[in-house]
Amino acid sequence: MDMIRNDARKRPDAATLATLTQALKDLLGARVSTAQAVCEQHANTLTWVENQAPDIVVFAESTEEVSQVVKLCAQHDVPVIPFGTGTSFEGHTNAPYGGVSIDTSRMNAVIAVHAEDLDCVVQPGITRKALNEYLRDMGLFFPIDPGADASLGGMVGTRASGTNAVRYGTMKDNVLALTVVMPNGDIVKTSRRAKKSSAGYDLTRLMVGSEGTLGIITEITLKLHGIPEAISGGICPFPSIAAACEAVIITIQSGIPVARIELIDEMQVRAINLYSKTTLEERPQLFLEFHGSEESVKEQAARFGEIAEEFGGGPFAWTTQAEERTRLWQARHDAYWAAMALRPGAKGISTDVCVPISRLAECVEATQHDIAEAGLMAPIVGHVGDGNFHVLPLVDMENAEEIAKAKRFVERLVERALEMEGTCTGEHGVGQMKMKYLESEHGAEALAVMRAIKHALDPQNIMNPGKIVSW
Amino acid sequence: MDMIRNDARKRPDAATLATLTQALKDLLGARVSTAQAVCEQHANTLTWVENQAPDIVVFAESTEEVSQVVKLCAQHDVPVIPFGTGTSFEGHTNAPYGGVSIDTSRMNAVIAVHAEDLDCVVQPGITRKALNEYLRDMGLFFPIDPGADASLGGMVGTRASGTNAVRYGTMKDNVLALTVVMPNGDIVKTSRRAKKSSAGYDLTRLMVGSEGTLGIITEITLKLHGIPEAISGGICPFPSIAAACEAVIITIQSGIPVARIELIDEMQVRAINLYSKTTLEERPQLFLEFHGSEESVKEQAARFGEIAEEFGGGPFAWTTQAEERTRLWQARHDAYWAAMALRPGAKGISTDVCVPISRLAECVEATQHDIAEAGLMAPIVGHVGDGNFHVLPLVDMENAEEIAKAKRFVERLVERALEMEGTCTGEHGVGQMKMKYLESEHGAEALAVMRAIKHALDPQNIMNPGKIVSW
Repeated sequence: MDMIRNDARKRPDAATLATLTQALKDLLGARVSTAQAVCEQHANTLTWVENQAPDIVVFAESTEEVSQVVKLCAQHDVPVIPFGTGTSFEGHTNAPYGGVSIDTSRMNAVIAVHAEDLDCVVQPGITRKALNEYLRDMGLFFPIDPGADASLGGMVGTRASGTNAVRYGTMKDNVLALTVVMPNGDIVKTSRRAKKSSAGYDLTRLMVGSEGTLGIITEITLKLHGIPEAISGGICPFPSIAAACEAVIITIQSGIPVARIELIDEMQVRAINLYSKTTLEERPQLFLEFHGSEESVKEQAARFGEIAEEFGGGPFAWTTQAEERTRLWQARHDAYWAAMALRPGAKGISTDVCVPISRLAECVEATQHDIAEAGLMAPIVGHVGDGNFHVLPLVDMENAEEIAKAKRFVERLVERALEMEGTCTGEHGVGQMKMKYLESEHGAEALAVMRAIKHALDPQNIMNPGKIVSW
Repeated sequence: MDMIRNDARKRPDAATLATLTQALKDLLGARVSTAQAVCEQHANTLTWVENQAPDIVVFAESTEEVSQVVKLCAQHDVPVIPFGTGTSFEGHTNAPYGGVSIDTSRMNAVIAVHAEDLDCVVQPGITRKALNEYLRDMGLFFPIDPGADASLGGMVGTRASGTNAVRYGTMKDNVLALTVVMPNGDIVKTSRRAKKSSAGYDLTRLMVGSEGTLGIITEITLKLHGIPEAISGGICPFPSIAAACEAVIITIQSGIPVARIELIDEMQVRAINLYSKTTLEERPQLFLEFHGSEESVKEQAARFGEIAEEFGGGPFAWTTQAEERTRLWQARHDAYWAAMALRPGAKGISTDVCVPISRLAECVEATQHDIAEAGLMAPIVGHVGDGNFHVLPLVDMENAEEIAKAKRFVERLVERALEMEGTCTGEHGVGQMKMKYLESEHGAEALAVMRAIKHALDPQNIMNPGKIVSW
């Protein structure tokens, strides 16, 4: 495969890197590494995207340190790539032009919890599981759940969402304020802790989803929610994907405040059964969860059961038992690994289209048709309450014909989503791999606006270059 | 009062204006006016902010026309100011450097309603009441309600919110996509109709709240909601502002999904009684509304009643009768006019601080103390579920001492909100009048980022110059 470069940047030369490495060691001591293995761990490792390692990895421990590192990089005109847990899919952590990876995993403190205001302030390296562990005894939780135990910084960077965005929104809806180190090393606070504000341009939302290309997030003020009084969850089989999607559409339109509503197609059910030792019927299944009072979660489950029945689905087996639910959602969260295990040795090509919900059934059905026609092994899971679904073609990377088929399939998938007023990425972000779709999605004029912002804020193009928009 | 100019711009000269006027007439025929009265109607008329009329008013009827007008203005280096209904408070529609006001009131069509997807596409000139009238028979509504019957374009521009933001969020949460005419006349679509996306910088949110300084909004895709099955509402008196605020805090923290929770202080109650012929007890009152099923609105009202009682409030008189509720909310919506009528001839200085809800009681009490100390007549209303409240000092503009007192009071109010991690504006926007607070609120570095964005997207500074950030 060709090296992925989307930009005009040059790699720093050896002398520059040597000088910079010394300057970084003067600043951070032993928290600087140029070891090949460490550098490779800080680039893409999770998908078929090639690994493009940075030249240097630094382990930052404070906003001030990140600012100092960025200033040194700016001074030496060397790229800076932020790193959280490395669980992104689209090559976000790759260093196509070399440079310095800033590992934020040691910046994992909870700085403050304001229980009365339902918010907290955290460092970017904390993972969502660690945060929720911390919050549990206070009766609070942070709802956004992309599946992986991602860092909050990475989740802000990619505008992540996941299984319960249908109820709680995405990262854009759950971040109150950010501290960001800008490309010149300036430390900017994007907003204050008030629940709303009209005081100027929304720098918070500009940074959410900017994937480290405009600045590095070093502190995050998050909205929190009270842990629901009661949670019910369950699984419901359907005779067809179309029937399952129709049931989802009606559920959403009826205003049932479903907390999660996830589609698993036949092939993914098989994968889960094999991987998680479950015995689900090999038919399209919806995984659901409801949050509320004891009364309301029962009522929601009952109402959904009726809707499912209308479309030939059911029986809807649900429970309020925590243990049972946890097992269910663990299986759902392991869906990616279960899918990968379906075909050992193959690589997965992650996809992430999202369409208006009225087009969902049609879109998923046409996609299944394409999969069959191309003879691909490609299970489907979806955050269908938002119209977002992932197909994961499992490809033998030694087989050129199969690779070509899979690539054509993915192109067609994105094309169809765009025809349906959808997007090429509902939650994974653009990174390196989806840059080519942005012009079809947004048009040249909108891309010019994005590029103008990038040029204005990062005139040297040192912040995660080669991602989102080409220079 | 000195002319408000926050910028280095010059006014266009007479020859330029004559050439431009002719070019605009060639384009729009009779939909171009330079009449003094028309121009003055298109600048600030609502508050004590002086009226700074544009030189020319055009009545646009399409995105394409707005683009043509902006191109002509760019070519002649003449300011462009968008105009909806003129109900903004902070001088947003003023033309401190002259130029062309683009009146969008004729662009008031509903382009599409996608009931299945709970969204619609509208032109910016439609008002919120007209939109809800249009939607009612479909069982849908658009919740954001700033009180005034504002245009949706203006509401996007100021990141408006209002009485039910506590439940439904602000404009930033309810806009899916925008069509924007950029300062060079380019027509940009900021996003697609999918419910979520991670495809690049969030241009939608950048434009929401940009007050016409980065582009002119010509089409809006809005999220809609199903009209609730049941609505209950009522009024609850409290022994003190502090008690009312404490009840609000507990209500929000308990997760009661209150749709509106509005504070009216004693002086505002008196104003409403006089203006709306009501007979409310002259004590702090909370106006509430609950949305949901028949069961749930009753349960919510009952739970709130218990909380109110704990703080010495009540009795909480509530009803599910539509007529009664309408009368109640009409009185609330007329609060501004009722306040103004308290002191005929005086001007109101609108304020709009918003603080974390844990600080609300303290902030409102200290503010009342300041009002008493300064001897001002200044009623208070507040969207207290969000920590946002408005004090409206009523000032005799002939009395220099009183003006000075009122100004000192407002400075102190903003200062206190900022000390409490709040904002100078929860929903009105910056316009001309709040520019001076932005550096204290955001810091010089964040302001530099805003300015860099403005310079990058509007290098000529023709888009609503002299608003939000100085050049």
